[in-house]
Amino acid sequence: MKTRPPPTIPKVLAFDVFGTVVDWHSGIAREVQALHPDVDGSEFALAWREGYKPAMKRVLSGELGWTLIDDLHRLILDQVLEQFGLTGLTEAEKQHLNKAWHRLDPWPDVLPGLARLKARYMICTLSNGNIGLLADMAKRAGLPWDCILSAEVFRAYKPDPSTYLGVARIFDVAPAEVMLVATHQDDLAAARACGLETAYIERVAEFGAAKPKDVSPDPANTWHARDFLDLATQLGC
Amino acid sequence: MKTRPPPTIPKVLAFDVFGTVVDWHSGIAREVQALHPDVDGSEFALAWREGYKPAMKRVLSGELGWTLIDDLHRLILDQVLEQFGLTGLTEAEKQHLNKAWHRLDPWPDVLPGLARLKARYMICTLSNGNIGLLADMAKRAGLPWDCILSAEVFRAYKPDPSTYLGVARIFDVAPAEVMLVATHQDDLAAARACGLETAYIERVAEFGAAKPKDVSPDPANTWHARDFLDLATQLGC
Repeated sequence: MKTRPPPTIPKVLAFDVFGTVVDWHSGIAREVQALHPDVDGSEFALAWREGYKPAMKRVLSGELGWTLIDDLHRLILDQVLEQFGLTGLTEAEKQHLNKAWHRLDPWPDVLPGLARLKARYMICTLSNGNIGLLADMAKRAGLPWDCILSAEVFRAYKPDPSTYLGVARIFDVAPAEVMLVATHQDDLAAARACGLETAYIERVAEFGAAKPKDVSPDPANTWHARDFLDLATQLGC
Repeated sequence: MKTRPPPTIPKVLAFDVFGTVVDWHSGIAREVQALHPDVDGSEFALAWREGYKPAMKRVLSGELGWTLIDDLHRLILDQVLEQFGLTGLTEAEKQHLNKAWHRLDPWPDVLPGLARLKARYMICTLSNGNIGLLADMAKRAGLPWDCILSAEVFRAYKPDPSTYLGVARIFDVAPAEVMLVATHQDDLAAARACGLETAYIERVAEFGAAKPKDVSPDPANTWHARDFLDLATQLGC
């Protein structure tokens, strides 16, 4: 990890979204709980999110064709609803609940942090979430992205190299001029393998306050920050 | 044309960019003139823009593979530089000049108009310009897009129906819930054929104050507005 910012790079900060920018655990738990007070919203949220990587693997392996996250979320939701015994929802209620991922709130440091970072850098998303989801979320939460980039633009999901390198290509800069900001070490490692800079953000409560996440620094990252305000400070913004 | 807004539609306003949002003629003329005071910047701008449709046709016909606008602009620029006898530019100067399309200014009504429209609608671009160009332009000019959509997302250029219908698909709405806002009747006609609503914006000086454009209303459009402020007023924003 560097102790002071390099003079010219990066030019573009690309942000992972679920967990890094928004608190999916609380948001999903809250909506589920509001719908059915008897259900453990936290466990429901964890189960829904846990279905994500296996579902994504079915796309990456080619078993499923290209599928938007909204549709993957729905595939998983139908299973999780069964699992939690919530079988009485109407189709409209299921569709509404599925879009809870569009209505997630940012962590408290995100809006002031992004405002500072945006003043110096091009700030964009780089998420497996579909464009419509990310745009709905940004509009509702006031996330001031300069650009919304998604797996949907590249028709490939992270950690496919074409997503990380795609950001550099879109902005006509070298991979080292792009920095991925994320709270997931595997995402950052894949970006690093493509030549990007990386910033790890501690989101100790990503899986709920009751299940604190290991946020140990990995010295392979360019930066390690508590939150977006800390990252802005370290970058001299 | 309607005299009062429909109650629920549209939900999404998709904006054409070159001519509709930004004044390409003045911007290009200014940069060319600054580079070479002897050149007629206005004529240079018109020649550069005039090369656009034939170049685009080479992509649409399949003669050229998928090509970003930045690269099409460069192909045309090399010809126009010859045509105007400007053969002394370095490669770096040519690259910089080619990005003049990233540095265009919006018409004076655009920022206050978009602020009003954004309060009620999802506002996005729908331009043949590449994503990086549109993001650079938005960041420099302060254009407050909720989302940047481009031919590059759909890998098809307007007037291909997949671009207009792609906006509806991305936001998970019906085509009639999307309205294209543009100063070009052919673009609006293609959108209308896909079921979109349409708003024509008068940009009488698109080709320079010396060459006023015919801005006669076409009753087939849902709306006809002088500028974005007038559109916002007509839509009750």
